[in-house]
Amino acid sequence: MVDLVPVEEVRAAARRLEGVAVRTPLLPVPAFRPVNLLVKPESLQPTGAFKLRGAYNAIAALGERARATGVVTHSSGNHGFAVAYAAAMLGVRAAIVVPENAPEVKIAAIERAGAELVRVEPTMDARLEGANRIEQARGYVQVPPFEDPLVIAGQGTIGLEIAEDLAAIGTEPAAVLVPISGGGLISGIAVAVKAACPGTRVIGVEPELAADARESLRSGARVRWPASDAARTRADALRVEQVGELTFAHIRELVSDIVTVTEDEITGAIGRLARDARLVAEPGGAVAVAAGLNRTDDELKIRKDGPAPLVAIVSGGNIDPSLLAFALSYNR
Amino acid sequence: MVDLVPVEEVRAAARRLEGVAVRTPLLPVPAFRPVNLLVKPESLQPTGAFKLRGAYNAIAALGERARATGVVTHSSGNHGFAVAYAAAMLGVRAAIVVPENAPEVKIAAIERAGAELVRVEPTMDARLEGANRIEQARGYVQVPPFEDPLVIAGQGTIGLEIAEDLAAIGTEPAAVLVPISGGGLISGIAVAVKAACPGTRVIGVEPELAADARESLRSGARVRWPASDAARTRADALRVEQVGELTFAHIRELVSDIVTVTEDEITGAIGRLARDARLVAEPGGAVAVAAGLNRTDDELKIRKDGPAPLVAIVSGGNIDPSLLAFALSYNR
Repeated sequence: MVDLVPVEEVRAAARRLEGVAVRTPLLPVPAFRPVNLLVKPESLQPTGAFKLRGAYNAIAALGERARATGVVTHSSGNHGFAVAYAAAMLGVRAAIVVPENAPEVKIAAIERAGAELVRVEPTMDARLEGANRIEQARGYVQVPPFEDPLVIAGQGTIGLEIAEDLAAIGTEPAAVLVPISGGGLISGIAVAVKAACPGTRVIGVEPELAADARESLRSGARVRWPASDAARTRADALRVEQVGELTFAHIRELVSDIVTVTEDEITGAIGRLARDARLVAEPGGAVAVAAGLNRTDDELKIRKDGPAPLVAIVSGGNIDPSLLAFALSYNR
Repeated sequence: MVDLVPVEEVRAAARRLEGVAVRTPLLPVPAFRPVNLLVKPESLQPTGAFKLRGAYNAIAALGERARATGVVTHSSGNHGFAVAYAAAMLGVRAAIVVPENAPEVKIAAIERAGAELVRVEPTMDARLEGANRIEQARGYVQVPPFEDPLVIAGQGTIGLEIAEDLAAIGTEPAAVLVPISGGGLISGIAVAVKAACPGTRVIGVEPELAADARESLRSGARVRWPASDAARTRADALRVEQVGELTFAHIRELVSDIVTVTEDEITGAIGRLARDARLVAEPGGAVAVAAGLNRTDDELKIRKDGPAPLVAIVSGGNIDPSLLAFALSYNR
């Protein structure tokens, strides 16, 4: 039995993140009507993705000796940049292990932040091994992308903000739609949202082509999808092959359901976010909006045009410009 | 002698706008370094531009009888949509006079909000005449795009938020860069910012091809540029031929300087905002960022890489998708 992250840890993370993470607004999008969908644009964090919250919280909570040595992580890009950026803010050395097929735009940002880059094969095993090697050789502390209570607590601050902002206007979300990769984002958000609004459905969203978490939830045990399968989706941030043990415990306990979206629906959502909400989203960042726009009331088990809003997390915006240009003219 | 809008009116507007206008965050953009520039993305308002603040404040302050009749305005698009949207929120009928060369994306949004559209020639005279005709024939109350104390006070709430957010982290802006068209936005922001931070430079920004406000400030009297000249810039939101009498009084009293940007610099700023800040900006919305990136310390009379940040208003994001796609690959 694994202990879930307590909501008090999420509140402690919120205090550490004051003045560091952008307090992103909840955006109504009139052009999405009749779907009553509010967008939480984590793409507006300085690193372009929510990952800054968890990474900063984990590094800020380290002891003096660990901070004097350094931190290391493996990441498909956004978490790597977040660790590099947070470490630089806190004056800590950082080494980032990245899969060699990560988008250039993400790798360039990590280098600009001043971190050391270590490229490996694009499998979970190669990434883990790379990070372990640096930990053992140099004593660097690992900041895992999702399987860590402090990282989960940091991502959970998004859920606190959603509940606070909606309480201020006297309502609660019918559902919160959250992209799933390793499961850290949805675990933290579920802890915070369920504590404040027990009746809200927390729903995970995956690409149909990388739906290991959905299969895991349905079967009751963690399933691993081969890297070659997970790599088929253009949502590069969601190519993790398997959720973590700790995150799966949160998902089983707190997540109502996991739905999937097609590659077409992802591209369409990127276009609609740019045209209708003036937001640049990456493919993995757009899956929750894709689900909000395309899954039916029956599939989500809520009324999409009801008085209680759906909230969709736009988790990141680091997209190759040519793909964004393509999506702009994509009308689905 | 014209009375300036008192900061108390801006505070009253902030109370009316609670829960209506999005409280937009101040966004750091690491990729803009060494320029220490924070972006205020008014493109994230539900209507895609700051104009909602002034329009809603003006309509919400109307008496019962005026609200029972209706409101009318003339606008190059963003103000028209804002009046249509605010009127619908408040249950008031609205007629919108638009220049026939306004972008289709803006006209479609006005129609979706349920307002009546009246198309006229793209000159200030034709627009004023169209609005006057509806006022006289039906008794609708005019909500002017800029030359009105309540509209100016509404836009000024942006300045209150900037001063508050920076005070919370113990600093003040070195300068606030603000797009100028009719002058309502910069007038309101200057009232609020100068009240809180008297040492901050409030700097207007215009396209070189529509620089009537700059010429007016330099010469000490309001200058009118021919519509055919002002129409040359792709910043359609900034094609107003002359600032107002009331807004010019604010500019002369409170604005430190007005600088200009080229069409190339505007397109470049749209591309950089999308790639580096994950924001979709329209041409008129991007001019302040263009100035922050391209004008020198000498031209702005501040240190762009100093500890006190520059703040640039991204005033709107309603851009034709094909222009955004072009700007994405534009590297200047």
